[in-house]
Amino acid sequence: MPDDFERMWSDLAPIGRSARTGGYFRQPFLSAERELADWFLEQCVSRGLEVETDAFGNVVAWWRGGGVVSHLRVHEPSEPGPKGDSLPTSAGILTGSHLDSVLDGGAYDGPLGVVSALAAIDELRRRGFLPTRPIGVGVFVEEEGSRFGLACLGSRLATGAMSWESARELSDRDGVRLGDVLEGGSSSLLAGVGTFVELHVEQGRDLVDRAAAVGVASEIWPHGRYRFDFAGQANHAGTTRMVDRKDPMLTYAMTALAANKQARLVDQRATFGRIEVAPNGTNAVPSRVTAWLDARASSDASLGDLVETITRQALERAERDGTSLEVTAESVSASVAFDPALAAAVAADHADGDWPIVPTAAGHDAGILSAAGIPSAMLFVRNPTGISHSPEEHAEVPDCLVGVHALADTLERLAR
Amino acid sequence: MPDDFERMWSDLAPIGRSARTGGYFRQPFLSAERELADWFLEQCVSRGLEVETDAFGNVVAWWRGGGVVSHLRVHEPSEPGPKGDSLPTSAGILTGSHLDSVLDGGAYDGPLGVVSALAAIDELRRRGFLPTRPIGVGVFVEEEGSRFGLACLGSRLATGAMSWESARELSDRDGVRLGDVLEGGSSSLLAGVGTFVELHVEQGRDLVDRAAAVGVASEIWPHGRYRFDFAGQANHAGTTRMVDRKDPMLTYAMTALAANKQARLVDQRATFGRIEVAPNGTNAVPSRVTAWLDARASSDASLGDLVETITRQALERAERDGTSLEVTAESVSASVAFDPALAAAVAADHADGDWPIVPTAAGHDAGILSAAGIPSAMLFVRNPTGISHSPEEHAEVPDCLVGVHALADTLERLAR
Repeated sequence: MPDDFERMWSDLAPIGRSARTGGYFRQPFLSAERELADWFLEQCVSRGLEVETDAFGNVVAWWRGGGVVSHLRVHEPSEPGPKGDSLPTSAGILTGSHLDSVLDGGAYDGPLGVVSALAAIDELRRRGFLPTRPIGVGVFVEEEGSRFGLACLGSRLATGAMSWESARELSDRDGVRLGDVLEGGSSSLLAGVGTFVELHVEQGRDLVDRAAAVGVASEIWPHGRYRFDFAGQANHAGTTRMVDRKDPMLTYAMTALAANKQARLVDQRATFGRIEVAPNGTNAVPSRVTAWLDARASSDASLGDLVETITRQALERAERDGTSLEVTAESVSASVAFDPALAAAVAADHADGDWPIVPTAAGHDAGILSAAGIPSAMLFVRNPTGISHSPEEHAEVPDCLVGVHALADTLERLAR
Repeated sequence: MPDDFERMWSDLAPIGRSARTGGYFRQPFLSAERELADWFLEQCVSRGLEVETDAFGNVVAWWRGGGVVSHLRVHEPSEPGPKGDSLPTSAGILTGSHLDSVLDGGAYDGPLGVVSALAAIDELRRRGFLPTRPIGVGVFVEEEGSRFGLACLGSRLATGAMSWESARELSDRDGVRLGDVLEGGSSSLLAGVGTFVELHVEQGRDLVDRAAAVGVASEIWPHGRYRFDFAGQANHAGTTRMVDRKDPMLTYAMTALAANKQARLVDQRATFGRIEVAPNGTNAVPSRVTAWLDARASSDASLGDLVETITRQALERAERDGTSLEVTAESVSASVAFDPALAAAVAADHADGDWPIVPTAAGHDAGILSAAGIPSAMLFVRNPTGISHSPEEHAEVPDCLVGVHALADTLERLAR
């Protein structure tokens, strides 16, 4: 098994990697990510898995083992799905993750879950395990929202949390619409899914602090993306007196500092990591600054408070600067509490004791499926740097292999 | 004459204009600016002017009238050139300006000087004037520095203020080097120039406040462009606690506010109008923020003080943020005092009295030629909005026609 994992991992290492930064650029439906998608299909075919796709680019490859094959839709997204031990015997167990990356991201965020899923199936076969319920390996597209701006786009479309009618109008930085890239339609890809287990590299230092190679997710913090459009008046940077300016860069700068301060005060998260300036010339006061706030908090109410406070302070500054501000919530995801019985079952009774159960402030496809009524669990693999969405993201091979075994154990328990 | 001016002006109006913003995108050696260059050559040829070009894309078209034709180099750039009334009778009088624009700029900044120069020659011919000294209409490339980052690039190369060896390594935002666009070499285009007179739209409100259609420049403030490279550590915007971050966006934001405050305190100018962020993703703390400071002050010493204060405050903040900062002066232009006798001569004895003599904080090719020892003067045409480097930049046709007459009067005085 170690060989399988490491061979697959080295297959992926060069794809979409920037030689300059060492980071990955794997935006959905562009060459590097498509190369990964092709690689995934080859891996599935070589394992004899049954590949299903949907109109949005999501893929699930099924290992039906000796189990009952079924495509019955076993839940309605609008209702809570079947819980843990009441799982219909026909319902499939889905694992997997995503293959796209943030801009200049790490190697592990996404691909670790996909590679570990394939390696876990290899491991289960090596154990001679024959699943009663089918096991699927899924890849959801555009989990990061790095191209079309909406995180978990593929799983939102597959669960019906987002309609194709609104999604197709999303556009990337070059003005390409999602509707230009995909035909779209509807998806029945998750119809046979009763449970989802996503393995993911940890994106903080919880497991480092707990000296645990693997952990299980308890909940996902609520989080959102908010576009701040600051408008002012373009003017000459040399001849325009400071008092005569309407400079949206100043309103933005104060807002970025205020967001940081407010998040610190309440121990939540607020980040301005993306900005676009017009005309973006050295010798011109900008006419427009657009910046995206990423905000996360431990409860839906505190997220609302945080964004409201930042917005209010920005509006007050805009008044002083003679600029204007519009704030648009591009996506807001409510908090997700993963099925506690499932999490406890995944975390308990391992060779080296129980794994810790920890919350996360990162969004995941597992959060979308959980919200759609599919009982879901997440396994995290320790990241010694604690750094993520960065070339410095890392996981040690021995920890990754503990993760593969943990996932194989989990799938064996759920699919037997 | 009004017809000539307005016909030329309407020829240029659609070229490089954004239908969305109404602003102009006329970057050097790209299609819109090249279309303007072709238009200029046609205008020169149709007037029987002798066109000379250099290896950098600069052009001078000579009207030799009945005067002595001479290509003698009458000055050395390193020495002060011949002053006003001691002008050799062979030395040419150069007028003109530039045709490139800032990104999303106005229609007047540059082209007004070129169109007015051609219209002034038409006017002088209409008056029956035959110059003793040749009159040239010049167009310098990349005055704005909007593509290769260095303002007055063409005039710096033509005067030898910048060497081709260093200029050819300049690159645009797509990584295209100037050396890929131009063969380069040396220039003798200004060898026959004894005096330069540049007409330009005003970029502030001085003439509005003085109720004057036209003014004459006394000096150009010293100014510079400084690249601020802020480096931090990319990380996940959700999972990374605020206290664990090394976020260069915060250091930048504080620096932008500090620059504004410092410039206000001493009544100088400091602007951050251009910024590039890596990786520029909504859900990632940036690894790097690069921002360009445009700073201008009334003396070389106060410019130095201003930039030093901003840099010091930025470094202090970087220390607190765990980020780093490097500041690179990409170009610094010392103050230019235009030849006072020439300015007085240009400003005096007009039909409607004397024109005011005013300083400017904007850089111009006339400043480069003046610094290279070519006595230079500038005429400004009133801009009712006071706004420049913006689609809102404006000049009224009657004021433009006063400008053409002012330029014709000036050329007649100098070239007779």
